[in-house]
Amino acid sequence: MVTAPSASYSVTLRVEIVNRPGMLGRVTSAIGEAGGDIGAVDLVEMAKTCVVRDITINARDDVHGHEVVEKVKSVDGVKVLNVSDRTFLMHLGGKIEIRNKVPVKTRDDLSMAYTPGVARVCMAIKEAPEKAFSLTIKQNAVAVVTDGSAVLGLGNIGPEAALPVMEGKAMLFKEFAGIDAFPICLATQEAEEIIRAVKWIAPAFGGINLEDIAAPRCFQVEGRLREELEIPVFHDDQHGTAVVVLAALLNALRLVKKSVDEIRVVVCGTGAAGTATIKMLLAVGAREVIGVDEHGILHPKRTPLDFMERWVAEHTNPRKLRGNLGEALEGADVFIGLSVPGVLKVDDIRRMNQDPIVFAMANPTPEIMPEEAEPHVRVMATGRSDYPNQINNVLCFPGFFRGLLDCRARSVNDRMKIAAAQAIASIVTKQELSPEYIIPSVFNKKVVPVVAREVAKAAQKTGLARRRPRTSVEGLR
Amino acid sequence: MVTAPSASYSVTLRVEIVNRPGMLGRVTSAIGEAGGDIGAVDLVEMAKTCVVRDITINARDDVHGHEVVEKVKSVDGVKVLNVSDRTFLMHLGGKIEIRNKVPVKTRDDLSMAYTPGVARVCMAIKEAPEKAFSLTIKQNAVAVVTDGSAVLGLGNIGPEAALPVMEGKAMLFKEFAGIDAFPICLATQEAEEIIRAVKWIAPAFGGINLEDIAAPRCFQVEGRLREELEIPVFHDDQHGTAVVVLAALLNALRLVKKSVDEIRVVVCGTGAAGTATIKMLLAVGAREVIGVDEHGILHPKRTPLDFMERWVAEHTNPRKLRGNLGEALEGADVFIGLSVPGVLKVDDIRRMNQDPIVFAMANPTPEIMPEEAEPHVRVMATGRSDYPNQINNVLCFPGFFRGLLDCRARSVNDRMKIAAAQAIASIVTKQELSPEYIIPSVFNKKVVPVVAREVAKAAQKTGLARRRPRTSVEGLR
Repeated sequence: MVTAPSASYSVTLRVEIVNRPGMLGRVTSAIGEAGGDIGAVDLVEMAKTCVVRDITINARDDVHGHEVVEKVKSVDGVKVLNVSDRTFLMHLGGKIEIRNKVPVKTRDDLSMAYTPGVARVCMAIKEAPEKAFSLTIKQNAVAVVTDGSAVLGLGNIGPEAALPVMEGKAMLFKEFAGIDAFPICLATQEAEEIIRAVKWIAPAFGGINLEDIAAPRCFQVEGRLREELEIPVFHDDQHGTAVVVLAALLNALRLVKKSVDEIRVVVCGTGAAGTATIKMLLAVGAREVIGVDEHGILHPKRTPLDFMERWVAEHTNPRKLRGNLGEALEGADVFIGLSVPGVLKVDDIRRMNQDPIVFAMANPTPEIMPEEAEPHVRVMATGRSDYPNQINNVLCFPGFFRGLLDCRARSVNDRMKIAAAQAIASIVTKQELSPEYIIPSVFNKKVVPVVAREVAKAAQKTGLARRRPRTSVEGLR
Repeated sequence: MVTAPSASYSVTLRVEIVNRPGMLGRVTSAIGEAGGDIGAVDLVEMAKTCVVRDITINARDDVHGHEVVEKVKSVDGVKVLNVSDRTFLMHLGGKIEIRNKVPVKTRDDLSMAYTPGVARVCMAIKEAPEKAFSLTIKQNAVAVVTDGSAVLGLGNIGPEAALPVMEGKAMLFKEFAGIDAFPICLATQEAEEIIRAVKWIAPAFGGINLEDIAAPRCFQVEGRLREELEIPVFHDDQHGTAVVVLAALLNALRLVKKSVDEIRVVVCGTGAAGTATIKMLLAVGAREVIGVDEHGILHPKRTPLDFMERWVAEHTNPRKLRGNLGEALEGADVFIGLSVPGVLKVDDIRRMNQDPIVFAMANPTPEIMPEEAEPHVRVMATGRSDYPNQINNVLCFPGFFRGLLDCRARSVNDRMKIAAAQAIASIVTKQELSPEYIIPSVFNKKVVPVVAREVAKAAQKTGLARRRPRTSVEGLR
């Protein structure tokens, strides 16, 4: 599968070019011939005999980046002075920092922000613990917790290597929802230890975002923390995904004029995201959901099943189907892929009901590429930004947590998740809705406030809000 | 003990005053009569019949603040519209926040800071874990960890109530040394659990600052973490205090022309700070140190002794003295108080050797007030900002951690602490040195860079540095 050049693999070349007419054209042609995509071209220095320029080039990947550089080096009269990888440059020193919200420049500042003045604030919280929400960072702080066991598609890379992802997540929290998130990368992968660690660090936080923790451990960790903590706990890989999938599905169903309770849905991949999506579908009234993993359709007689697979097997597949993905798809209305690249074939789609809906969200390469599937489907969506209908968690978690924090929610429930999905779906108006536009862009500014408002409302209706939600816009920049 | 009005107890009154000549004078007189200290007076609104002003008033404490407000209310023609406590106002919403260091405004930004670009950074760290220091926040991040068991002088107030202090500490880290510190307030007070919690959260941090953990638990926690972690662990209440005390003592001894190895030192209070100070004194060659607590002089036959008190009893007091504080001070050169208000009497000081040095650092009220002690001592210091010679941890920890992070130190040792003390002492030049100036101000800009440089040098000399220290100024704002 050939991916297009993108900024995620981009290098800046500093090149010294002999000062002769036509030389820059020879360099850019070389880059083009090698398949590189030229971005900015900056002049660094102009001398009599030579010109130094910085040329930013998007490439497909590491190997391709090297090929492009070699091609440039081969041009006569050109010297490559330096090659810098923009993604690595951006990461130098980390991507987030702490800032003080009030000055500590004078003795007076110090005596209020720190000793002795701070003592009165401490005692006020000691006497009325709920004041921690107004007088500390707790009201706007979220811990992004991982054990590094299932990071992106990279697998079990451990807590240090997971840190750049958690910092990135914290950035999105800040950028999209004004939330102060901090990475907690745990040096343990034992469920009981993760639970204890999170319970111990919880006092400074208003919410816990679990991230990239492998299944089935993630179910146990989240379940226990929900029971034992008085702040909301949300495993984004599960519920963030389930919410955005449901949002996209609600709009896709509007297009094909089918209702949730009458459709047949096949969910391929029953890890964290797949399982949560199945539960979400059942929660909104889907009656025929079929889970499929690498061993085929889940049913109660299959062995071995872990505790969550068993739950899925027992709560889905009412017709007790057995068999492979193709058999599961016989007459199905919807395919939801949260599995691995390339597992869905055109022949499988051909077995589906009319107006098939295919969400192929394996990353970075979908279960089936849109070019291949589109002639045979009514609605197609992926997790990718380079095709229409990108189903991306960024549509959910910032607004979701904004809503939780705004009303100081005690926990998370299905009502909030459904409200969030409906809120995201509602951003696409009736007039706008089309097979190529069932879900808003991650940069759509309307998403976060609406999701936050609806989540907080749901929290209030279900008795999980500590206060009436204040307008969430105040928290946004 | 009457304390002076200070900004730490200050209120802003919004008052509506009848618009007549002389009225403001009557209000300010009333405030003065009640002992309030007037700061800013701002005009809010001027109407025909009345004037609205904001008057900021420093008071001694809560009770005094109320008295002042009542006095103002009693003035004819004056209406108090609102009273706001500046310290509480400053704390609303917390004192620190997360900021993004690079933008995430476009798809390209997103594809570099987050998926898919971030995956290459993760894999680079997975392959070479030390790269976490350059490619993540780890290089500049410190966890400020507490269990809330010994917060300021407030005692065991728990992790939520401790949070304002930890945020304040984080602010000082940022303001003085450009360090990104984050509060970890633990919902456990078991030593073994604190140790486990810190080990589990350690991967994202370049250093651990333990704070306000009660003795003797703090010794066990710090000792074990030092052994088991590959990043420096520093209990500020112990070593921050010990370092600044030693800095002040070195300069005081220069004044009285005595050397460390010939002095007799009494350390009153053998909690975290006192014990660490005793160890520091022994490390720089003091031969006669005597520890005293509320039960009198520590000696090996005394019972009961906890494990750290036993250590002190066995390593100090070479003349096997027994008795009370006064007896300990017989012929002593130095009194170091890290205990409780008022325990040192003038009669005790009279028993000391000539040129007595008295550091009375109980907070907020010293072991003896400077006014009372000064006629009888050569050098006097306290922990307070309203007398000369303030011995304050802020002189140590920002520069100390700056140095540790600059050289990516693996641990902390005595050589670094001694180097830090000498660095702080060196800021006071020979010409400047006087009984009223033995230690620099906490706002002296020279302190942090010099401490950082010397700590990093010591780390390098003792083999604990991961790299040659870069100039620490780059990390400062």
